[in-house]
Amino acid sequence: MTIQPQAFLSELFDTAVAAAHPRQVLADYLPEDRSGRAVVIGAGKAAASMAAALEQAWQGPLSGLVVTRYGHGAECQHIEVVEAAHPVPDDAGEAVAKRILELVSNLSAEDQVICLISGGGSSLLALPAQGITLKDKQAINKALLKSGASIDEMNCVRKHLSAIKGGRLAKAAYPARVHTFAISDVPGDEATVIASGPTVADPTTSAQALLILNKYEIDIPDTVQQWLLDPASETVKPGDPVLDNCHFTMIATPQQSLDAAAEIATKRGITPLVLGDGIEGESREVAKVHAAIARQIAERHQPLPAPCVILSGGETTVTVKGKGRGGRNAEFLLSLAISLQQHPRIFALAADTDGIDGSEDNAGCLLTPQTYTRAHSLALNASDYLDNNDGYSFFEATDDLLMTGPTRTNVNDFRAILILPEGNYESE
Amino acid sequence: MTIQPQAFLSELFDTAVAAAHPRQVLADYLPEDRSGRAVVIGAGKAAASMAAALEQAWQGPLSGLVVTRYGHGAECQHIEVVEAAHPVPDDAGEAVAKRILELVSNLSAEDQVICLISGGGSSLLALPAQGITLKDKQAINKALLKSGASIDEMNCVRKHLSAIKGGRLAKAAYPARVHTFAISDVPGDEATVIASGPTVADPTTSAQALLILNKYEIDIPDTVQQWLLDPASETVKPGDPVLDNCHFTMIATPQQSLDAAAEIATKRGITPLVLGDGIEGESREVAKVHAAIARQIAERHQPLPAPCVILSGGETTVTVKGKGRGGRNAEFLLSLAISLQQHPRIFALAADTDGIDGSEDNAGCLLTPQTYTRAHSLALNASDYLDNNDGYSFFEATDDLLMTGPTRTNVNDFRAILILPEGNYESE
Repeated sequence: MTIQPQAFLSELFDTAVAAAHPRQVLADYLPEDRSGRAVVIGAGKAAASMAAALEQAWQGPLSGLVVTRYGHGAECQHIEVVEAAHPVPDDAGEAVAKRILELVSNLSAEDQVICLISGGGSSLLALPAQGITLKDKQAINKALLKSGASIDEMNCVRKHLSAIKGGRLAKAAYPARVHTFAISDVPGDEATVIASGPTVADPTTSAQALLILNKYEIDIPDTVQQWLLDPASETVKPGDPVLDNCHFTMIATPQQSLDAAAEIATKRGITPLVLGDGIEGESREVAKVHAAIARQIAERHQPLPAPCVILSGGETTVTVKGKGRGGRNAEFLLSLAISLQQHPRIFALAADTDGIDGSEDNAGCLLTPQTYTRAHSLALNASDYLDNNDGYSFFEATDDLLMTGPTRTNVNDFRAILILPEGNYESE
Repeated sequence: MTIQPQAFLSELFDTAVAAAHPRQVLADYLPEDRSGRAVVIGAGKAAASMAAALEQAWQGPLSGLVVTRYGHGAECQHIEVVEAAHPVPDDAGEAVAKRILELVSNLSAEDQVICLISGGGSSLLALPAQGITLKDKQAINKALLKSGASIDEMNCVRKHLSAIKGGRLAKAAYPARVHTFAISDVPGDEATVIASGPTVADPTTSAQALLILNKYEIDIPDTVQQWLLDPASETVKPGDPVLDNCHFTMIATPQQSLDAAAEIATKRGITPLVLGDGIEGESREVAKVHAAIARQIAERHQPLPAPCVILSGGETTVTVKGKGRGGRNAEFLLSLAISLQQHPRIFALAADTDGIDGSEDNAGCLLTPQTYTRAHSLALNASDYLDNNDGYSFFEATDDLLMTGPTRTNVNDFRAILILPEGNYESE
């Protein structure tokens, strides 16, 4: 049997991305009833391509406005596409969020809103609540990020400082019907988490938000304190009748992409081992565990024999201490390279399905036995690069960057580690 | 089908420990030739029980001296057992190391040495090289531990500052035959790593040791610098004829213990998923990955359906920032508890096979759905306990400590995570 490891791993990644692309998945889920006015809104890294896919599949009149990240736009005929900043919101995002909110206000029960949500939507829809400035919100956000608050805690605060999140967008659209189509980039695929749930109920409260700010000793201006004490600051709660006409459909998830990749692997004669769609933890440590499992397969034929490909999704984190370049996936793969100790039969790919690893221009990187050879001939010390969080520079030097450009969808990270058996297995 | 999760997990741990116990594994490996004088020496957490097992199986005259950790002793008829400090060496360890070295010196080619080696032997056999004080060695050791040096780098330095490690014990015994029997507690099961390889060749050099001390800017006294520049500081190198009469046999490994546990699981109708015998990384992060895999099995039936038990070995690390109590396994299980978010069908055990997790009195801990209930009724916040590295106190409060006392063997950590299926599966 013959396999080209790099081509195989790239094929798995392309398959995972394709399985989550709006043009592949949106049409099947659209509502039958297309009467009345359809106003399209949306936010996220996939918003523009979702809008384009919607235009392709929809037979009635459409208009609207969606916001995506700079560089993630797509051509639409009837729906306006605006680009704004991610992950730190900018004025363009605030302006478009305001326009989106206005667009769905004053609709009737005969109208329908199509809301296209995907990862990144939270920063792109940054519209502060009444009396709060974007600057205040940004400062609190930054302080929370440094504080050690959990993602749930941060989301609780964010939703209560927003004019659009935590179901408020749906409330503004009431009594129109709201059909939300979402692409999940979060472990657990919870609707309230993706883009901070602008069209779904939020079980958390303003009081909880205040407690969290207090717990982490976040300095807040009086305006924020006053707002959180005002009943108007409450998000839309489960059971609220304004949500009666709201429908939520998940059209793509990390799990679906892993399953699609696993299917292709099986077709190619390589057994898939799906570890999980929601792997979290510090990138370099998560990599050590992946490396140990890969070595176990290679050396002990457990939990199953090679040829085999480990697949995992989710979102790792990087605690930045160095001054280097690169996202979570470069960091993961660099740590993996160190732990694998030049293993000759293990190949890997780690990349962000949105096509951008962190804030660089690569989707991720590849690791092959040749990577070690090239690193050695260039006298690169992988540990030094990892100490400096400089995975991008390392894999740039070894010519192992994976460049795809923005994919215009986002089901979080994708990792594939191929283990070949000993002996008469050819890799080209 | 009915299963008692806690009893099942405890049975797996007991099986893993039993599979690595000298009384179970030593006799089969003893040499046929029992002529001549047999001098027994040894060091490590299993040294006393290895000596006792040897006495049981050996038919000729035996005498000797082994050193084990305080509390890990066992009764012997002919072999003296001394206890000393671990992990920080003390004077008792230095004194016994000196006696062991003397015991094997001046032997003839007709004599044989039986050397019983297990994890912990490195600290227990702390005999500084000529002209270096134990205090100097301890100071360098501490500085290295804080420096971020890798375990390989630390071992290189340790071996070159020792009078006994890196093959020197075998050199002292020359021309007697040396039979080393070892129990591995290290990922990769390398003979040079277990107890710093007192009877096997060491490929590293004094020059490398100096470079490492320089790289991490470790302050060293002149005596140490002079020693490392002296050719006498070189360890015994591969191919050295003093090792011609040396035989090395691994009698127990982490992998064998995992296999034994897997076999029992299969017998009980629970599919084992062995992740690896050499899992490394920061405990709390390694736990997050284990949790994600367990959830994937519970919710997605991937990579295989429940009932299933994840098994893994190896040694995680804890970067201590808090002031709490507990070893690596308590830390692992506390982080696992947080990540599992009170999952009702996942049960876990994490424990050190030597019976002592870190420097507490427990082998490890158990985690069951009742743990969450008890923690809740006691108003314990798991995250606060984890922040304070206080896993022991948490699981002590929830009554989930696993107490075995010293097991007198050591194949590193053992983790088992049981996932039950939904529906008609009874757990008592």
